[in-house]
Amino acid sequence: MTLFDKHRALLDQAVHAAKTREYWSAFPENPSPKVYGETAQADGQAATQAYFNGDFPLQQTATRSWVATEQSPYGVALNVRYPDCAPADLVAAAQAAESAWQALGAQGRVGLLLEALTRIHQRTHEITHAVMLTSGQGPMMAFQAGGPHAQDRALEAIAYAWMAQADIPATAHWEKPQGKNPPLVMQKHFEVVGRGIGLVLGCATFPTWNTYPGLFASLATGNPVIVKPHPNAVLPMAITIAILRDVLREQGIDPNVVQLGLCPRNEDTQALATNPAVALIDFTGSTAFGNWLQSNAKQARLYAEMAGVNTVILESAGDYAATMKNLAFTLALYSGQMCTTTQNILIPQDGIATNEGHKSFDQIGQDLGAALAALLEDPRVATAVLGAIASPATSERITASAQVGRLVHASQKIAHPQFPQAVLQTPQLVALTEADSAIYNQECFGPVAYLVAVKDGASALTVAQNTLQQHGALTLGVYSQNPAYIDQAVRVSLRGKVALSINLTQGIYVNQSAAFSDFHATGGNPAANASYTNLAFVADRFVVVQRRAHV
Amino acid sequence: MTLFDKHRALLDQAVHAAKTREYWSAFPENPSPKVYGETAQADGQAATQAYFNGDFPLQQTATRSWVATEQSPYGVALNVRYPDCAPADLVAAAQAAESAWQALGAQGRVGLLLEALTRIHQRTHEITHAVMLTSGQGPMMAFQAGGPHAQDRALEAIAYAWMAQADIPATAHWEKPQGKNPPLVMQKHFEVVGRGIGLVLGCATFPTWNTYPGLFASLATGNPVIVKPHPNAVLPMAITIAILRDVLREQGIDPNVVQLGLCPRNEDTQALATNPAVALIDFTGSTAFGNWLQSNAKQARLYAEMAGVNTVILESAGDYAATMKNLAFTLALYSGQMCTTTQNILIPQDGIATNEGHKSFDQIGQDLGAALAALLEDPRVATAVLGAIASPATSERITASAQVGRLVHASQKIAHPQFPQAVLQTPQLVALTEADSAIYNQECFGPVAYLVAVKDGASALTVAQNTLQQHGALTLGVYSQNPAYIDQAVRVSLRGKVALSINLTQGIYVNQSAAFSDFHATGGNPAANASYTNLAFVADRFVVVQRRAHV
Repeated sequence: MTLFDKHRALLDQAVHAAKTREYWSAFPENPSPKVYGETAQADGQAATQAYFNGDFPLQQTATRSWVATEQSPYGVALNVRYPDCAPADLVAAAQAAESAWQALGAQGRVGLLLEALTRIHQRTHEITHAVMLTSGQGPMMAFQAGGPHAQDRALEAIAYAWMAQADIPATAHWEKPQGKNPPLVMQKHFEVVGRGIGLVLGCATFPTWNTYPGLFASLATGNPVIVKPHPNAVLPMAITIAILRDVLREQGIDPNVVQLGLCPRNEDTQALATNPAVALIDFTGSTAFGNWLQSNAKQARLYAEMAGVNTVILESAGDYAATMKNLAFTLALYSGQMCTTTQNILIPQDGIATNEGHKSFDQIGQDLGAALAALLEDPRVATAVLGAIASPATSERITASAQVGRLVHASQKIAHPQFPQAVLQTPQLVALTEADSAIYNQECFGPVAYLVAVKDGASALTVAQNTLQQHGALTLGVYSQNPAYIDQAVRVSLRGKVALSINLTQGIYVNQSAAFSDFHATGGNPAANASYTNLAFVADRFVVVQRRAHV
Repeated sequence: MTLFDKHRALLDQAVHAAKTREYWSAFPENPSPKVYGETAQADGQAATQAYFNGDFPLQQTATRSWVATEQSPYGVALNVRYPDCAPADLVAAAQAAESAWQALGAQGRVGLLLEALTRIHQRTHEITHAVMLTSGQGPMMAFQAGGPHAQDRALEAIAYAWMAQADIPATAHWEKPQGKNPPLVMQKHFEVVGRGIGLVLGCATFPTWNTYPGLFASLATGNPVIVKPHPNAVLPMAITIAILRDVLREQGIDPNVVQLGLCPRNEDTQALATNPAVALIDFTGSTAFGNWLQSNAKQARLYAEMAGVNTVILESAGDYAATMKNLAFTLALYSGQMCTTTQNILIPQDGIATNEGHKSFDQIGQDLGAALAALLEDPRVATAVLGAIASPATSERITASAQVGRLVHASQKIAHPQFPQAVLQTPQLVALTEADSAIYNQECFGPVAYLVAVKDGASALTVAQNTLQQHGALTLGVYSQNPAYIDQAVRVSLRGKVALSINLTQGIYVNQSAAFSDFHATGGNPAANASYTNLAFVADRFVVVQRRAHV
């Protein structure tokens, strides 16, 4: 039985789910020992720790040195050393692996990748402990977002890549009638050929979730891939790459189909990105580097997720308490270090109508602060929800934000009982006015939310639309009991090309997106030029080369 | 019955054909009166001529003047005046039409476009007489390539656009289990939203065939389109646009969903291309302007077909006479003014083995010249096959090419009995050596073929591969009786990402591609970054905007 046959049922389920967009998940998000095994967590963490203070077991050709680059936000001394290879050597090794990977065909590639993905899943605890330690995410979030949710996104990318390739027949018998003469008859062959080398540039905060889609999409469509993780979050991808290389080797394929490109120096990253053989770049990171890639890596297709400014509009509330609770969790989760976290909360300056009566702008600020305090009161909950601040620059932004407006709710530092060096900070709320667009229309990444007093509900829509046009966003939320207002918000979301969440008051948050159902980013506003995952994310990663001859 | 239901069977057939890639055509290529009607040709030509010396009936908002720009290669005084609108006004009108076009949905758009396409088909003789007069194509070729073949390509684009959108459900009921607690339940909506305005930049030689795919792909995916035809070949697209606008008006849709953007001044074209609202650009033309677009119109997705250098390798021949005949027709058709016409014929310097015995390099040159002479001996055949030279620059290139190598077969001027001002020129054959890559690796557009004496068969493959890498190509041909050699040629085609035709000796030519079966360009080499038509050609022309709310 081929690997494709072995995993065919999983693939078919994934394709079906992507087409219905109903709830489906291949990988359980519940870390319970009953699901993952009694000793899975301890075994996984031990496996992660076994990498510390050593050379990561990755035999790449032409390794010129071993380098440790990670600083854990939890203050854990990782000191894992990774192979540092010259960009030209990585490219040469990838090119050497290219034609065999292409010749394997869509079925061969998809089968092999699904086999690797199931092994990645078996090592969820190991990989996600590395996600936690490198990203600063809380343990539960690191497990879910870094494990099953990322694996679902990988499967989704494989499924779309399969759909895009499955429609192309391997051969066609072409017979053109010629009236009374014999027909013209040709045999045609069609081969899927990857565009070239895929380069995947990861980020510090979601080392697997934001890297898997591009990695698996490029691989499934016939491209060898070089993964350049963020220097601070290498380990989760090193483990992932090692698993992929194991499966490749077992199947008799050159493991250099997937390589770690550590690129500890920026010039190495730039050299890789602009190498003529690099045809695809997946990037999650700053708008500045995204723009640099667009201007300088012209030879490559770019799939970029960059900075955005996410907005929630409070026009009225049917369940005020649940609204505050929902927003508080959104702001607190991973200390707002998600590209989907709300930054601007637009509130009419004269307040809003709610099921608890009229609430003034100031009252809402107080109530949201109180909801944050209540959520984060218990240090065990706080440490789990907040995680650690991944970058000192984020702490500096929190401090600076107190100066740009009226401080409504101050960020607090929290000590982590287990990790004394970790910096944990609760969200800060800063009140602004509609005129402060120069402030609220810039991304302030981290646990800072602006409560913007806008003239009225109509102004809120205008402000949201301007922010979308100028800076883009991955998420937009609206709270309103007025169906006509919701309709207007829908039109803003269509014009601004952003996903809209309406009146979230239950266990779903505006910053969450579920694989197979929610598209993450539309690809249609400045925050991202591509989406996880649709056909456009995969269909241009390969070309079809045909040949034809008379029969 | 909706227009979608009316044309559903045609759409289903087109989708089926695109997936099997077997022979299928929706529109008959035989211009016979039995197929098109006894008076169809005369009526069509009369309709075309009725436009001469007048304002073309196109009521576009904000027309600032009426301008005639066309010079017929046949010397016919057309003097059709078209509305010239300011780029900003075209954009404003397109934007005003955008949301209603988007709201129509995929079914509404596809139904309307199929209705328009059937009406375009009914006016094939009218449109294709305009194609002939503006492009210089011979009448039969203008009819086939400008009519049914272009219409097939339009249908193909609509079919792919439909496939890409049909996989996205309008709504989804999402129910996530929560163990013993009630599930989380959400209702989700998904809307296809076009990326923005599509700009389609046409070429002088194939005013419909190279314009329809981008036009219909952008329209079907929810984008209003501005068509900027080549200034010398406006009329076929003006008629097409008028038909589309008629159908839009009948359906109560703002006709500015499709506009003619004449742009008689280059700065107007550049202003349009770089307008922030222009999100998609389809371009057929020079590499220089293609590169300009890539560098300057960064806000838009670019689908570009540019210059290429097409090669045929003669390694050995199983039917030498038929090979010569096939190549002669390829070179002569439309005087080599096709982007798919062979330019370089690579021949081992010591000659090749054929079914007629060994043929020396010089003999092959003589025989190919003789085949050309035989094909074009009869002036009626010659005028029909050659058509007219569309640009004086092409004639200059023919003259210049005699200086770069040894003239093997000189181009001849032919008088056209019906159109005394038309410039007709037969193909010129020029012998070069392998060392002359500076000459044969440049595009020499028009009826010039280089017979390149290469060291041997292996050298031919190397030369072909270098040409592909440096300059790209839309077509590659190989003649060989050696299966191992064919395999090597296949590998060259895969590496160079170009379609390969093997041993064409019957009524199929390397420069022809059939809709629904042959992909025109792979999109993977410098000659073109996109293909007619695959999913990649349509899938990124729209985004999906979702909204979700608790049930």
